[in-house]
Amino acid sequence: MAQDGPASMNLPKVAVDWEDTPKAAYSVFESRTAQNCAAYLLPALQSLKDANPRVALLDVGAGHGSISATLARLIPEGHVTAVDINPDVIPRAKVIAESYGATNISFQAGDIHKLPFEDNTFDVVHCHQVLAHGKDQVGALREMLRVTKPGGLVASREGDMDSEIWWPQTPGMQKAHDYARMLITAHGGGGCSSSGRQLLSWALEAGPKRSQITPSYSVWHFTEKEDKERWGGGMLNVALAGHVRERAVKAGVKEEDLDEMREAWKEWIERDDATLIMVQGEVLIRK
Amino acid sequence: MAQDGPASMNLPKVAVDWEDTPKAAYSVFESRTAQNCAAYLLPALQSLKDANPRVALLDVGAGHGSISATLARLIPEGHVTAVDINPDVIPRAKVIAESYGATNISFQAGDIHKLPFEDNTFDVVHCHQVLAHGKDQVGALREMLRVTKPGGLVASREGDMDSEIWWPQTPGMQKAHDYARMLITAHGGGGCSSSGRQLLSWALEAGPKRSQITPSYSVWHFTEKEDKERWGGGMLNVALAGHVRERAVKAGVKEEDLDEMREAWKEWIERDDATLIMVQGEVLIRK
Repeated sequence: MAQDGPASMNLPKVAVDWEDTPKAAYSVFESRTAQNCAAYLLPALQSLKDANPRVALLDVGAGHGSISATLARLIPEGHVTAVDINPDVIPRAKVIAESYGATNISFQAGDIHKLPFEDNTFDVVHCHQVLAHGKDQVGALREMLRVTKPGGLVASREGDMDSEIWWPQTPGMQKAHDYARMLITAHGGGGCSSSGRQLLSWALEAGPKRSQITPSYSVWHFTEKEDKERWGGGMLNVALAGHVRERAVKAGVKEEDLDEMREAWKEWIERDDATLIMVQGEVLIRK
Repeated sequence: MAQDGPASMNLPKVAVDWEDTPKAAYSVFESRTAQNCAAYLLPALQSLKDANPRVALLDVGAGHGSISATLARLIPEGHVTAVDINPDVIPRAKVIAESYGATNISFQAGDIHKLPFEDNTFDVVHCHQVLAHGKDQVGALREMLRVTKPGGLVASREGDMDSEIWWPQTPGMQKAHDYARMLITAHGGGGCSSSGRQLLSWALEAGPKRSQITPSYSVWHFTEKEDKERWGGGMLNVALAGHVRERAVKAGVKEEDLDEMREAWKEWIERDDATLIMVQGEVLIRK
């Protein structure tokens, strides 16, 4: 995923393997770093570190932890606690952390709505593309604020699925967008497809004054060949293959539509003029 | 207009004056600078300047020239030629240039489709939110390339009107978006509301190979109070007032809808949780 400012140059290159579902899927998630996904947080993190290098950072919904690990590298005298509701991700997250040479990091299971920590524990509590997937985003932000020290920061970045735009605008790509949106908003019984634009309103509802919140917006885009292979590969090999495809067909999605989406993604990956862009909303909240 | 990276801190503050149409309208356009609208160009411009400080830069469709003037300040040993199809803008552009202390700048009338310059004249040929308003964007880019020296750069940034998202999502704001889109795409018999996502395809059609083009994307957003006053003020005082409103009513837009849009913009300006975001497409083309 390319990013304004920090570019995608350092991402691992993964060619599309039409048969290898998990590798292509993980490639999208594991290419995320502090630099390409939390750029809005980095100047404030640097200031905290300048004041006290032993920054305690909690990364919530960390998944495979590539953002957690790259954050850990930025605070070598500090510590990152990476939690995810699914403890099955921890072994892979440990491998990723090792690949980045991050040793000041620990992993545990934890629910964003009931974080297993005392009040006022962390200097920074961060989540990336987590709130959009659940319900009660305001409650989640309140819980993140609870475990943040006074004077510390809550940082959240959320995609805005409905802001997604792409080129070329083929009928198959429109179907593919509608299908992906359906999968995301249906997942887990919650989900929000306009989280980027709503994030500031959730932050205000969680309690802080407007003056405590710094909102910003950036884009995710997939335009260079390797980025398109990564994103389109995830769509082809996960969203449109295996058990997800089977579930979709059972739920009534037509096989011919799924095939049209596959062809549209393949064309999109190959075309020189193709791109896909999505707005990301960001808030930094000073407790 | 706030921007990723360069923030809006240096923009002049203009309170909304509901009666003062032109000031509020100009405020939006004149708050544009090289820093907040051409950040994608600045590293490459610096490299050109390092190689030869006497950079010759052409700014096409420069309007009141606030971007031209701030570009001129970045190349003090170079020169900016600012052209616009409408020579009536030149006196105001001269005032703006003077306010920035830019003396290495000249102004003249010029049509992007028939630029009054020899082949291979400029090191950099730039336009900002110009292609979207016309027809034959490919021809315009070819003409910009014609007057660019071999090894020089064409730089273009175009808004993507259809990517516009906002909060709160009131019915009045949806009507206001549809109305503004209608005004822009109707203007001058041309116009394109998806220019941001299409820009790379136009650049390729104009002749360069993909390897000569560096595409990027960023956002325009209006979230802080002064930015909302500037943007919403332009909508209230220009798009929804005076002769534009009269023309709209004659064209069949209902008075009650226009009034609903006014109320929606006023609410949007006042609300702490309000934002409006639009994707901008960017290309740097190496000739």
